[in-house]
Amino acid sequence: MKRSKAAGFSKRPIGVFDSGLGGLTVVREIRKQLPQESIVYFGDLAHLPYGTKSKRQITRYSIQSIRFLLKHRVKAVVVACNSSSSAAFRYLKKYFSVPLLDVLRPAVELSACVTKTSRVGVIATQATIDSGAYEQNLKRVLQSVSVFSKACPLFVPLVESAWRDGRVTDLIIRAYLAPLKARKGDTLILGCTHYPLLKARIQRFMGSAVKLVDSAQPTVRELTALLREKGLSRSGKKRGKLQVYVNDQPRNFKRIGERFLGESLRQIRVVSLD
Amino acid sequence: MKRSKAAGFSKRPIGVFDSGLGGLTVVREIRKQLPQESIVYFGDLAHLPYGTKSKRQITRYSIQSIRFLLKHRVKAVVVACNSSSSAAFRYLKKYFSVPLLDVLRPAVELSACVTKTSRVGVIATQATIDSGAYEQNLKRVLQSVSVFSKACPLFVPLVESAWRDGRVTDLIIRAYLAPLKARKGDTLILGCTHYPLLKARIQRFMGSAVKLVDSAQPTVRELTALLREKGLSRSGKKRGKLQVYVNDQPRNFKRIGERFLGESLRQIRVVSLD
Repeated sequence: MKRSKAAGFSKRPIGVFDSGLGGLTVVREIRKQLPQESIVYFGDLAHLPYGTKSKRQITRYSIQSIRFLLKHRVKAVVVACNSSSSAAFRYLKKYFSVPLLDVLRPAVELSACVTKTSRVGVIATQATIDSGAYEQNLKRVLQSVSVFSKACPLFVPLVESAWRDGRVTDLIIRAYLAPLKARKGDTLILGCTHYPLLKARIQRFMGSAVKLVDSAQPTVRELTALLREKGLSRSGKKRGKLQVYVNDQPRNFKRIGERFLGESLRQIRVVSLD
Repeated sequence: MKRSKAAGFSKRPIGVFDSGLGGLTVVREIRKQLPQESIVYFGDLAHLPYGTKSKRQITRYSIQSIRFLLKHRVKAVVVACNSSSSAAFRYLKKYFSVPLLDVLRPAVELSACVTKTSRVGVIATQATIDSGAYEQNLKRVLQSVSVFSKACPLFVPLVESAWRDGRVTDLIIRAYLAPLKARKGDTLILGCTHYPLLKARIQRFMGSAVKLVDSAQPTVRELTALLREKGLSRSGKKRGKLQVYVNDQPRNFKRIGERFLGESLRQIRVVSLD
């Protein structure tokens, strides 16, 4: 009985949400590592961005987003937003019984493996940095670690506005990261799902000796392990479906979303959560 | 009877709202031109920014904001947000019976008076530019006008992050405004309440021959006329009170808000609109 129920569950989609587009970098990685899985993505555009909001609001918006995904009978949920992962995840774990994964701990654990000097930098939104979640989690897995954090509030609008002038981007990167570079860490966590789109330029500024860690790969590895452990992995070779929902009219969503996703976004459905 | 009712009404505060902090530039001007008036300000931080949202969402959020102000028995409401003024104002005028003022038409009318060449530039958020409201209103008051519009999505985060590196600001200004400068307008409307904080640098780039128009002054002149016409002006020399409400925990709100307001923000009350 239990096995057949799990077999039925395994065909269900994986739910992924973010305040906007950034979470599609995680979807991209799921499509790569677990191509047979179907995905329901929700972008909370009506409340975007989370990174400037309070813990209370972020928690409220996250609950609404997960409830929406649960209506689509998802078998697991990835909180593909660092602001939510750091400010709300502990509460969300208690609130929901569906298997939940955040994007913070996988990046922290990979960084703890990667660093040789135990000197780790973290860049993220103001909400994520203010929560102290990266620092706390790093210290939990690597007691000797020194953590250098920096909020980079202009990175998200820079990516979302598809800014093309490299000089401006480089100057902003320099202004934010020069103090971190001076601390001579060997690992830098990109603690926001938007930042992978600036990865090449950040790498160039930090130098090739610094290892950049983003959440997508380790999160999807953990998702794979979680699904296996619970008997929820979907088998077969057929490529899974991707359904994308947002709760506001997508302004530039398709164009920018496709850059995050790395494939064409055929249909974006606008829904109301109220 | 009618007169005494108006006399009672005249002591009531003026309501002002914006998605965040920018509207405080209008409050500053009310405090200057109408120091005896009391003001209730509401910053819709939980839904900030409006400039990336759809017309429908902006209208919804604006209705909630005005309802909040009406609970504080305001005698008039200033929609101190260009995105709301351009996307929602026509609807709001029908929806509410309280005297309502937007920040768009006063800037348009002043620009029509100021321009000698009938070549006017407009810079604003994406939502404001997409609405076409500035262009439509300019053409209504000055049929021969040529309008050049440009959305500047990085200006708001630049101001809100209190970015101090002048080189970055100047490069971003140049990238947005060079195409407008090439059109040789003699007037440039700063169509967002955040932009006055970049005024000096924008002026330097555009050159002293270009007249920059922001909404605060003409809006408050129109407010003064409206209050007089309706017998709602408050008399006396006692300085009016300023009450500031927001619906999310103010992250940097006090510090940045004081830059907009030009005076110290003693108390900011956090409320829930739900």
